[in-house]
Amino acid sequence: MTSCIAIDAMGGDGAPKIVFDGIAEFVKAHPTTDAKFLVFGPEDVVKPLLTPALASYVTIKHSAEIVTGQTKPAAAVRMGRKTSMAMAIDAVNSGIADAVVSAGNTGAFMALSKIILKTFDGIDRPAIPALIPSDKGCTLVLDLGANIDCSAENLVQFAVMGSVYMRKLMNIDNPSVGLLNVGSEDLKGNQVVQAAANFLRDHPLVNFHGFVEGDDITKATVDVVVTDGFTGNIVLKAIEGTVRLFARQLKKSLSETVLSKLGALIAQPSLASFKRFVDPRLYNGTMFLGLRKIVIKSHGGTDGIGFATAIKVADELVKRNVIPDLQAGLEGIQ
Amino acid sequence: MTSCIAIDAMGGDGAPKIVFDGIAEFVKAHPTTDAKFLVFGPEDVVKPLLTPALASYVTIKHSAEIVTGQTKPAAAVRMGRKTSMAMAIDAVNSGIADAVVSAGNTGAFMALSKIILKTFDGIDRPAIPALIPSDKGCTLVLDLGANIDCSAENLVQFAVMGSVYMRKLMNIDNPSVGLLNVGSEDLKGNQVVQAAANFLRDHPLVNFHGFVEGDDITKATVDVVVTDGFTGNIVLKAIEGTVRLFARQLKKSLSETVLSKLGALIAQPSLASFKRFVDPRLYNGTMFLGLRKIVIKSHGGTDGIGFATAIKVADELVKRNVIPDLQAGLEGIQ
Repeated sequence: MTSCIAIDAMGGDGAPKIVFDGIAEFVKAHPTTDAKFLVFGPEDVVKPLLTPALASYVTIKHSAEIVTGQTKPAAAVRMGRKTSMAMAIDAVNSGIADAVVSAGNTGAFMALSKIILKTFDGIDRPAIPALIPSDKGCTLVLDLGANIDCSAENLVQFAVMGSVYMRKLMNIDNPSVGLLNVGSEDLKGNQVVQAAANFLRDHPLVNFHGFVEGDDITKATVDVVVTDGFTGNIVLKAIEGTVRLFARQLKKSLSETVLSKLGALIAQPSLASFKRFVDPRLYNGTMFLGLRKIVIKSHGGTDGIGFATAIKVADELVKRNVIPDLQAGLEGIQ
Repeated sequence: MTSCIAIDAMGGDGAPKIVFDGIAEFVKAHPTTDAKFLVFGPEDVVKPLLTPALASYVTIKHSAEIVTGQTKPAAAVRMGRKTSMAMAIDAVNSGIADAVVSAGNTGAFMALSKIILKTFDGIDRPAIPALIPSDKGCTLVLDLGANIDCSAENLVQFAVMGSVYMRKLMNIDNPSVGLLNVGSEDLKGNQVVQAAANFLRDHPLVNFHGFVEGDDITKATVDVVVTDGFTGNIVLKAIEGTVRLFARQLKKSLSETVLSKLGALIAQPSLASFKRFVDPRLYNGTMFLGLRKIVIKSHGGTDGIGFATAIKVADELVKRNVIPDLQAGLEGIQ
């Protein structure tokens, strides 16, 4: 299946350069790809970045306006379909493209996607998942911020969507799902997680493991960890912060003395493989789950390598046709 | 001020050995200490561990029974004042000791402490804080699990208690306090954190910074991070899990090849200083905040070095006379 990916060239700290760097990285890593890209942005800004090597993959689509990092979601909606972000989403809605990728303003991207593409029946706000490195490779955690106050029903929907997502994206047959709690015993936690666990124990579409704790995320106890958007957002950022602190301190320690610098130099290839393991760029690109089309959000601060990972996620999910499975899982449980 | 510390010798995975190792480590690190220890446990088990070098510091107090890791809190309470844990707490209540330390069963230790020592007026359940390594040294996070459903008033109490604790334990003059949320903007989050922020903005005893996010914990944006016990417990365990994953992967990478092993060997002293930075034993020992006496919980899985840190925390808080300040802060805000 050929995939056509719409890209908002104007989102992200390093835009539009990271977008073209990302496409180039993706094409380099997948030389036989049949993916095509519709890149939206003001022609005078975007066109000069299109190299001859990319010309056969990329079609540039002019947009008069852009959504910046400071644009409020409501303002982005009021700007209508003239921005590069809205036009890229529109391309998916009209069927010209199969997926849309943006590294721009998360709130605006979510608001525009909801209005233009609509959610599945019964889904109020889409969930945002993230892949966290773990001993087994990675664990999917959701929701990461779209839904602050969650009902038990919301958590059950996250469990279904997370299962489908991991099956399609990571080829995991029957992904196990854990519900994040303060202990693994059945009686722990608040009423919402208790009620959600009751629903999940007999759920036909979820391989429910039971409650899991904070350290189970990196221990890979389960494939999917479900939590409300408040806890999920805080936990994700705490993990990111810890990885960064650890990396800073390690770097500091290894440059303390001449000997430690020498040791680090000798161990360089292995330290590089370690660095890759925790490199957030290699976990970049997450789908807004609950929308009727494939919408991929890239981290705003990423570079070409990170943006290429987001493109790969989009391409993979198009090829594996994730939407019908999500819809069946969600609308079947109404 | 001389401090007399009551110790439950029978709590923790490595008890009673870790307790005597811990006292020995503490005395070695503080050779001029005037601290004395009352060590509670069955005489036949505990006495053989008392070395001549420690005899002048330690008095052994016989207990007929013990609380194990499997004892339910209610069962520990029903066992009365015959267990080493209850007797150690009792010693503080009767004024024989100034503080109590145990590495035993957290639920039982909390339940017995509440019944024997009582909480301050208006405090329902004491909070559990923890020190997390950060760029500035460490950040205090509370609550870590004692209070699952928190009201705005609970969060305000945590802010007051956390401020006093950091001032007394870490000598920080006017500790800054952040409220954990999904964003730092004033309008973010659920109703509870919104209401708590409103109280804290004009609070006379709290240097309120505003909302902080998950990654602010390790960034040392503030000295004290306040959150409910549900989120706090999950975040703490997620951070611990991330540190352990990182350490495992680093070790794996550094033993991949002959060269990386050589590099690691050469950089050994610096890697050791890095290891110290994330060594959980050096952050061990936390006070149950809200009780009328000093009660210090050590991690159950710690060793002598970790237990010595918990003893140091107890000794420090006795010398700095933390209880009147906590009481004034809490009962003043009723």
